[in-house]
Amino acid sequence: MANIIHRIAIKQPIEKVYQALTSINGLAHWWTTEVQGNTNVGEKIDFSFYKKTGDFMATMVMQVQESVTNACVRWHCVGGPDDWVGTDVTFELSEQDGQTILIFGHRNWREQNEHMAHCSMKWAVFMLSLRAYVETGTGKPSPDDVKIDNWN
Amino acid sequence: MANIIHRIAIKQPIEKVYQALTSINGLAHWWTTEVQGNTNVGEKIDFSFYKKTGDFMATMVMQVQESVTNACVRWHCVGGPDDWVGTDVTFELSEQDGQTILIFGHRNWREQNEHMAHCSMKWAVFMLSLRAYVETGTGKPSPDDVKIDNWN
Repeated sequence: MANIIHRIAIKQPIEKVYQALTSINGLAHWWTTEVQGNTNVGEKIDFSFYKKTGDFMATMVMQVQESVTNACVRWHCVGGPDDWVGTDVTFELSEQDGQTILIFGHRNWREQNEHMAHCSMKWAVFMLSLRAYVETGTGKPSPDDVKIDNWN
Repeated sequence: MANIIHRIAIKQPIEKVYQALTSINGLAHWWTTEVQGNTNVGEKIDFSFYKKTGDFMATMVMQVQESVTNACVRWHCVGGPDDWVGTDVTFELSEQDGQTILIFGHRNWREQNEHMAHCSMKWAVFMLSLRAYVETGTGKPSPDDVKIDNWN
């Protein structure tokens, strides 16, 4: 199993970061504008991605497995690209030096393929988007996300 | 062993990307301004990092193990933070859709610790810096790199 793990700090209270990870409105401001579902434990959230032209790309379906206020969130991927299904997305929050530290993980990939390398860069730019949203109110969710290669 | 692997595309000829990875001047424009050494196979390159205040942070010493024109570069880390020594940094280049595809790797970490998660985000912003340098002439090498957390 292989993992993408990124560490980033956000200069805002931990409550604001947790809110951005556990509300449909928050999620829509940094990952993709097209979010539907319910963020409670046991429920599912659908994240859909479209090109700027409007062409559909993919829907990632995440089942919320854990959500501990101001501490952690864990999703299990139950729909999306073949190599995403069965993986886990984790957010661990803590406080240090007056900042909120986020350890982001996209874990348990079956193999470290080229698509995983693409997703590693994409998650990094989405982490910058999350930070910008929480710190300034404006992120760069899809379809206005930073494009990093010929795939997206 | 754990690996950081990022995929990015650069809208410039592969020769320009290879040059940015294999000349002291090129490296100084996207990773750190403080680069010394020789980029030939078997030789060593010292990359030093300072805070904006001028305080010294670290020197990473890379031994060039492979350098195949317009195809790949591999460095072995022989000096730097404890968890970097013995790791490998790789750059694999190819062409697709009229773009240069770069698969960047920082491989063979002994454990996937929190510092590796920090470095994963830092390498992502340095890949964006490399792309900006090759595409526009201006990157964001240290000490003007994007800061991503309370460590750097």
